[in-house]
Amino acid sequence: MQNESMPNILIKRALLTPNRIAIYFQDQTLTFHDLYECSLKVSGRLQALGIRKGQFVGVLLKNHLDTVTILFALQLLGARAVILNNRLTAAELVFQLKDSRSTFLILEESFTQTEAVITEQIDQLTTITKTKLTQINPEEPYIQEEISLTDICTIMYTSGTTGNPKGVIQTYGNHWWSSTGSALNLGTIDSDCWLCAVPLFHISGYSILMRSIIYGMPIVLHEHFDVEQTIKDIQLKKVTIMSVVGTMLTQIVEALEDRRLPASFRCMLLGGGPAPLPLLEACVKKDIPVFQSYGMTETSSQIVTLSPEDSLQKLGSAGKPLFPSQLRIELENGESAQAGMPGEIVVKGPNVTPGYLNRSEATEEKIRDGWLYTGDIGYLDEQGFLYVKDRRSDLIISGGENIYPAELEAILLAHPDVMDAGVTGIEDKKWGQVPVAFIVKKKDTNLSGEELQRFCMERLAKYKLPKAFYFTEQLPRNAAKKLLRRKLREWV
Amino acid sequence: MQNESMPNILIKRALLTPNRIAIYFQDQTLTFHDLYECSLKVSGRLQALGIRKGQFVGVLLKNHLDTVTILFALQLLGARAVILNNRLTAAELVFQLKDSRSTFLILEESFTQTEAVITEQIDQLTTITKTKLTQINPEEPYIQEEISLTDICTIMYTSGTTGNPKGVIQTYGNHWWSSTGSALNLGTIDSDCWLCAVPLFHISGYSILMRSIIYGMPIVLHEHFDVEQTIKDIQLKKVTIMSVVGTMLTQIVEALEDRRLPASFRCMLLGGGPAPLPLLEACVKKDIPVFQSYGMTETSSQIVTLSPEDSLQKLGSAGKPLFPSQLRIELENGESAQAGMPGEIVVKGPNVTPGYLNRSEATEEKIRDGWLYTGDIGYLDEQGFLYVKDRRSDLIISGGENIYPAELEAILLAHPDVMDAGVTGIEDKKWGQVPVAFIVKKKDTNLSGEELQRFCMERLAKYKLPKAFYFTEQLPRNAAKKLLRRKLREWV
Repeated sequence: MQNESMPNILIKRALLTPNRIAIYFQDQTLTFHDLYECSLKVSGRLQALGIRKGQFVGVLLKNHLDTVTILFALQLLGARAVILNNRLTAAELVFQLKDSRSTFLILEESFTQTEAVITEQIDQLTTITKTKLTQINPEEPYIQEEISLTDICTIMYTSGTTGNPKGVIQTYGNHWWSSTGSALNLGTIDSDCWLCAVPLFHISGYSILMRSIIYGMPIVLHEHFDVEQTIKDIQLKKVTIMSVVGTMLTQIVEALEDRRLPASFRCMLLGGGPAPLPLLEACVKKDIPVFQSYGMTETSSQIVTLSPEDSLQKLGSAGKPLFPSQLRIELENGESAQAGMPGEIVVKGPNVTPGYLNRSEATEEKIRDGWLYTGDIGYLDEQGFLYVKDRRSDLIISGGENIYPAELEAILLAHPDVMDAGVTGIEDKKWGQVPVAFIVKKKDTNLSGEELQRFCMERLAKYKLPKAFYFTEQLPRNAAKKLLRRKLREWV
Repeated sequence: MQNESMPNILIKRALLTPNRIAIYFQDQTLTFHDLYECSLKVSGRLQALGIRKGQFVGVLLKNHLDTVTILFALQLLGARAVILNNRLTAAELVFQLKDSRSTFLILEESFTQTEAVITEQIDQLTTITKTKLTQINPEEPYIQEEISLTDICTIMYTSGTTGNPKGVIQTYGNHWWSSTGSALNLGTIDSDCWLCAVPLFHISGYSILMRSIIYGMPIVLHEHFDVEQTIKDIQLKKVTIMSVVGTMLTQIVEALEDRRLPASFRCMLLGGGPAPLPLLEACVKKDIPVFQSYGMTETSSQIVTLSPEDSLQKLGSAGKPLFPSQLRIELENGESAQAGMPGEIVVKGPNVTPGYLNRSEATEEKIRDGWLYTGDIGYLDEQGFLYVKDRRSDLIISGGENIYPAELEAILLAHPDVMDAGVTGIEDKKWGQVPVAFIVKKKDTNLSGEELQRFCMERLAKYKLPKAFYFTEQLPRNAAKKLLRRKLREWV
């Protein structure tokens, strides 16, 4: 038992290195001492509003300094943050808040329209806007000085083949091991500074916050990705590491033109799906050190990363599993694949989620004997380098966001004039992939693409909207009537 | 449960970075791939000799490349290494081997005289000399591909107030957390290289082996500490970090004269008892970056270390507890001390031993509610920096070796002419401290110091021998007849 407890990470960091810079946001600079003091005050306010240890608290916030202090205030109180994607529709948010049994929702003023819809549909939910939060007199907060590594820290939703999103449990231990696993791979140096222009509501962004505290490293937080601001801040703030997805890196490479990143910049940590080879080659030409990686919400960020010494020889590989993690390729007959043979990527390690919130069945299906079945296809070469051939056949990755065809199909099938629907992804120069839909109309209806688009817009985040609707007589299904999405892709 | 397993660390490291240099020893250089292959072969030989998972195996070896491969071979097999101090007498070794129920003893040829005595006194013990080991045909070893963090990795003996040494359990998790805790404090950079001139049979040396594998960092292994060889290798092998005790650092400072260590050298990790302030000041003058630390066998190496940014302002402090660890000062009434108030140092963390082998009573006495009661006295300043005032009153630290007065007293009392005996430490310029003994003779005997010295030499490691024997009429004891060792010190 003693091995499972640890000091609260923000308290500990503020004790260890109070005067080091923790965060640059716009024109503000906070030390770890400042960050602790601010988060402590917010925790007193959240407690005054009724938030307590163990509760699930929805968080619908943009990249902002306030978001950071709110997220750490929740850690100080021992409350669990259900971190909501800002781009979801009210209907999608309602599902996640209900599913996680959240009793509070902290949100930006700008989401007040959404707030009205949500509160109408959930009875036992207290909403807290950022303004309301600042108006409350803080109580003396009851702080969790110690954390248990098996305690739930955050919940982030992902979908899957079943359609309904599932809440991925991320424990303090998951975040800790992810953070130290990354440190052992990338090294940690005194001058490190990590630029976060990815959303804090994704594991890619949240994990940067955790690393900042665990390493004692400053981060530069951007509200959103702006390529010129990025290039400027890399120079100005002496950024050494940045997390990117393919579209961001493409923009950086293009915007740089004849310029170069400073020599002290040591890592573009590239996640969010396989990167096109030409992009990687362009980066080599411009001396941009790219570390390809592979990971997902269930692995609390990267679980496989390409090491410095291998980044050139193994271009296109995602690398090797981080120190505490294991990986194997499983064939359909359940055996482990030999080198070169593609199969399902299965992973294991202390950074891997213990399961899905309130979904024991889904947990048992995806995690067997401690191994997470990712559904992704890949192979290992002779030296143990992973090559990801294809994310799970049904997953579409668009600008770093995951889109699940089953979720879109369920929405489309809810339209009264739709008899059958199938969704797949197609290549897109800017976003990597975008979804398109194949529709079988009910007889004697005159359903249009415009109507379907309008229908989807009410129910789906914008980035999930199908870019085209194709009408057809029949969908490709196998004998068991299972939709063959790979066939759909061939149709396009 | 899944959080507690991890790949075998040597297998994993050999997979991650096979071609990085792992170890320099004399004129040999091994990569991690080489080290794995060598250790694998040794594990096949050890298995052929009968060593199996879970067994306790005594190891009586000097600092040598073979020792490294033997220690990792034991990890590969899942056997537990009972790591024996080379300087112990046969009688002391017999005690530790019996106490740990070791069934094998691997030892250097040079210890064959000791071997004869040991095998005479322990029936169920197979001894394996290094020569014997090389002559055996290796079997196909049954390798532990995964380790459990709660499994026992090593046993190292320490004594205490009770006299008999106790086997400190060090789990894989203890070593892992110690290693990552240190990494988060010191940082890890690609060019790091750690010089090990401290004994591998101490936690100070063994922990360097573990860091090498976990960080993927080369080490330079010396058979013993040689000040000129040290200065030479720091230059030649581009050493960046070295573990030292006070006497070693004193010699380095003196030997350097007008020379300087290279600028890339970044850390003298100083352990093994409080360092004298003049030494620290001399290091500042010579630009030697000293990181004072505090730790013990029970904490699997340092648990408190002074961070880079504080090393000058807080000269003489041991620093702050490493990230995963906690520390408080407990007063005699059981309350936590305020800043500035001295009391017993109690520590907690995943690097702290789960207890003593086969000694539940001693474990319960020393570890309460997950907190280890060190017996050492210290205080925290306002910023949380630890100042160690005094190691537990009965502990003598001589050149980095721990000497326990109770153990020496038990030996002295075994002499037929000794009625009472008390041991304490006195200051020594070279070794920090050395033990001296106070003796009450039995009536009508003419016991001499020479006779006692002869008597002790047969039974005690050389470094433990009292440097002087003082004869007296009576020892200072309190009402409960407890020996007041602090009084003894005043007598000297």
